[in-house]
Amino acid sequence: MIFQDATISEIDQVLQESWKAFQVYRKTTLKQRADLMRAIAAELEATGNQLIQVAMQETNLPEARLKNERARTMFQLTSYAAACEAGHWLEARIDTAVPAESQPDLRKMQVAIGPVVVFGASNFPFAYSTAGGDTASALAAGCPVIVKAHPAHAETSEIVAKAIAKAVQKTGLPKGVFAHVHGSSTEVGKALVTHPQTRAVGFTGSLGGGKALFDWANQRKEPIPVFAEMGSINPVFLLPGKVRAAAGELAAQLAGSITLGTGQFCTNPGLILGVAGADLDSFVRELGAAIEKTTPGTMLHPGIAKAYTEKRQSALSQDHVETVAIAATAPRENQGVPTVATASAEAFFKNPLLHQEVFGPYSLVIQCPDVATLVKAAQHLEGQLTASLMATDEDLAQHGALVDAAQEICGRLILNGVPTGVRVSLSQQHGGPFPATTDSRFTSVGADAIKRWVRPLAYQSWIDAALPDALKNSNPLGIWRMINNELTQAEVKS
Amino acid sequence: MIFQDATISEIDQVLQESWKAFQVYRKTTLKQRADLMRAIAAELEATGNQLIQVAMQETNLPEARLKNERARTMFQLTSYAAACEAGHWLEARIDTAVPAESQPDLRKMQVAIGPVVVFGASNFPFAYSTAGGDTASALAAGCPVIVKAHPAHAETSEIVAKAIAKAVQKTGLPKGVFAHVHGSSTEVGKALVTHPQTRAVGFTGSLGGGKALFDWANQRKEPIPVFAEMGSINPVFLLPGKVRAAAGELAAQLAGSITLGTGQFCTNPGLILGVAGADLDSFVRELGAAIEKTTPGTMLHPGIAKAYTEKRQSALSQDHVETVAIAATAPRENQGVPTVATASAEAFFKNPLLHQEVFGPYSLVIQCPDVATLVKAAQHLEGQLTASLMATDEDLAQHGALVDAAQEICGRLILNGVPTGVRVSLSQQHGGPFPATTDSRFTSVGADAIKRWVRPLAYQSWIDAALPDALKNSNPLGIWRMINNELTQAEVKS
Repeated sequence: MIFQDATISEIDQVLQESWKAFQVYRKTTLKQRADLMRAIAAELEATGNQLIQVAMQETNLPEARLKNERARTMFQLTSYAAACEAGHWLEARIDTAVPAESQPDLRKMQVAIGPVVVFGASNFPFAYSTAGGDTASALAAGCPVIVKAHPAHAETSEIVAKAIAKAVQKTGLPKGVFAHVHGSSTEVGKALVTHPQTRAVGFTGSLGGGKALFDWANQRKEPIPVFAEMGSINPVFLLPGKVRAAAGELAAQLAGSITLGTGQFCTNPGLILGVAGADLDSFVRELGAAIEKTTPGTMLHPGIAKAYTEKRQSALSQDHVETVAIAATAPRENQGVPTVATASAEAFFKNPLLHQEVFGPYSLVIQCPDVATLVKAAQHLEGQLTASLMATDEDLAQHGALVDAAQEICGRLILNGVPTGVRVSLSQQHGGPFPATTDSRFTSVGADAIKRWVRPLAYQSWIDAALPDALKNSNPLGIWRMINNELTQAEVKS
Repeated sequence: MIFQDATISEIDQVLQESWKAFQVYRKTTLKQRADLMRAIAAELEATGNQLIQVAMQETNLPEARLKNERARTMFQLTSYAAACEAGHWLEARIDTAVPAESQPDLRKMQVAIGPVVVFGASNFPFAYSTAGGDTASALAAGCPVIVKAHPAHAETSEIVAKAIAKAVQKTGLPKGVFAHVHGSSTEVGKALVTHPQTRAVGFTGSLGGGKALFDWANQRKEPIPVFAEMGSINPVFLLPGKVRAAAGELAAQLAGSITLGTGQFCTNPGLILGVAGADLDSFVRELGAAIEKTTPGTMLHPGIAKAYTEKRQSALSQDHVETVAIAATAPRENQGVPTVATASAEAFFKNPLLHQEVFGPYSLVIQCPDVATLVKAAQHLEGQLTASLMATDEDLAQHGALVDAAQEICGRLILNGVPTGVRVSLSQQHGGPFPATTDSRFTSVGADAIKRWVRPLAYQSWIDAALPDALKNSNPLGIWRMINNELTQAEVKS
């Protein structure tokens, strides 16, 4: 199915309608927003098999994965709805007046920032797309959402958008709370980001794409925040004690993580670093053996398959890079063939290409002379979504410098686990220093994602009747608030 | 006293030392940081009269004001120290493992972002300068600070810097936790902002200055956040009922606020908007009478006095702008003469110069035909630190659209009060939509200012012994944490 790119005037109309809807939507109660989000989850479920079939056709992802991803997307909507209602994200603060010191009554809470433009990801047609985490968190915050459909799964996006529109209608909210536009040209993206009524942008995709949005947003007369998640090679550091104790187990764990979903995850472990020697040799051997036994998978679309083939080829052909193993089964058209290579630390430090992302089932093992070089390698790396340490308790105690260096470059630090698999919970940090994301201070997964779409507003000497419920003396929402520097659910004694 | 500009290689050395100190300082306990901040406050006090005398000479500010400002600066340090120790800003979150769903243990907290470069303000030699709010909040967060002295009060800055260095030494922390450099050229500023080890920037000053830092920071290979507070005209909306009831009172209140500190506050009310008619006429008459009775004050430095004279002249000479009143006493050299003018709404909408900041004791009264035009004017305005509504309860109930429009453009919404006077407390929001600041999502006053210098870090499947204290099962800090979505001070049952 072919969808026409939105024109500049259509985009303007969409944003004007979003802005109008914002005036109503930002005043909705937390319960109204949560009801909308739960209604979207219900409509998503109601799309039944049709949505799954269309998505299978557009993305080549298997049915079971897509069903799981839809369930996860519904969980995001309902769990962020619960967080929305719990109201911690409002960060309500009250400092009562101190007349003796001429200090006025001052109260503060988070308020919605305005219309949010969302660019979905190709590799998560549901969870990071049309009704995904960006949309769910923005709706919780009180912001209307404009989604630009990903051209690689535009029909899937269209079906999801219709489900959202139905939920908006059923909950009696203005139509402009959600809008959906198509666009395969950069002009559509640029027009959305630079429109004066756009107040923030969410994006999941490539470094080139995310950085372009970031630059457009900062060049506006009035710059706006862009939350772009742009990929990562998710280094895994193997500490000597652990490799000695569990080389085979580590190899199996990592082979599974490298090839999961044909490696098409932003949390794919693309770089493994260890200390050269017999133990690492045995790990590499076992990893190679495991990779050989895996089978190539069909990638999301021909463009991604082509990019994988080219980048993999380029990586393997670098000086001092040795291929360790390639899946024995030959790949068919548009398939990505699982591959593991290895290189010395020296080559790694010299050649920046060795720490570029090869999006797909590929990983590179760097052999360092010692742990100090592992630390140096960590310090040498760009910002990452995750960093993993495979370590015994003794390794950890001995090599604190590596823990420090790894924490400096990532948003999530994993011990004895693989980076793939992103728990959707409040403690999640899916975000990291640039270039993993454009803003390491926020997460795109977990209910803290709501914080991306709000800003604080203080009310000075306001009368109780005109205050938002979150700040009223009687605490009608029953939320936790900081009152005169104490956290409490109590009301304010007037 | 003349201070040499720091050279590029000196700046590099300073940042390298900051980075080294960061590795130690970010691991300090909350108590260690709070102790440092309290030690700085004590050293500031110990500067005694010498500091005040030097600051008087450099800034032309009166003794009483400077003594007050130093006391405020000490209060900032000690109150942010208390907030640092209370630990709410750590936003500790724990989601325990759910083995049945293969969900790992996940814990998250805010960690220090790294070395922070601070550019102080000319108009607050203490509270927004060397040991001011940016420095205090960054130290609380665990970040080393590099202050670029404001050239207009470089010696004051030097004395304060020495006091801080003494406190750093007395508390046994690495010297690099605080650095102080001089620079009157833009090269120094640019070198500081673009240095690879710089992780964030705080600035208080002009739109031109702040925007330049923002652009440099975004053009870096690795963009970093800039928190620039860049001024504001702080619109005051007079609602009809209130003007009818209290024209004289409003005039006295506003005349005081316009001329306070010779108008050299970023919260100075530079724009007053009311509904034309007999009531507003009487307000304007009384405001004029009050302004005539005020006396010119000596401005911070000749550059600011010159800029005021020119911008004021330019504002008064615009078509359809009528001068209402000028202080009767003639100004001496470098003095700013209190001035109030008036214009029609029509002129205001046509001429953007009428909503540009005239930094000094100047305000413009806009006469609107009706409240709907007040709303339109609010929607027309750029982002502001504050907006004030002078309104009876009835006015408020009747004119909700004005409340909505005013809230959209500001960070602090004031009822029946003037914008000058910024309470230092957790509920304060000193920040607003661009161009008031570069990031409306953060405040530069109140303990929430700490949040500017941190980013979240998640620990997955980490062993208790290796977790930071804030996330340990036993909750050794006794802080409030979100455990499995519930706010509690309890320990985690393992």
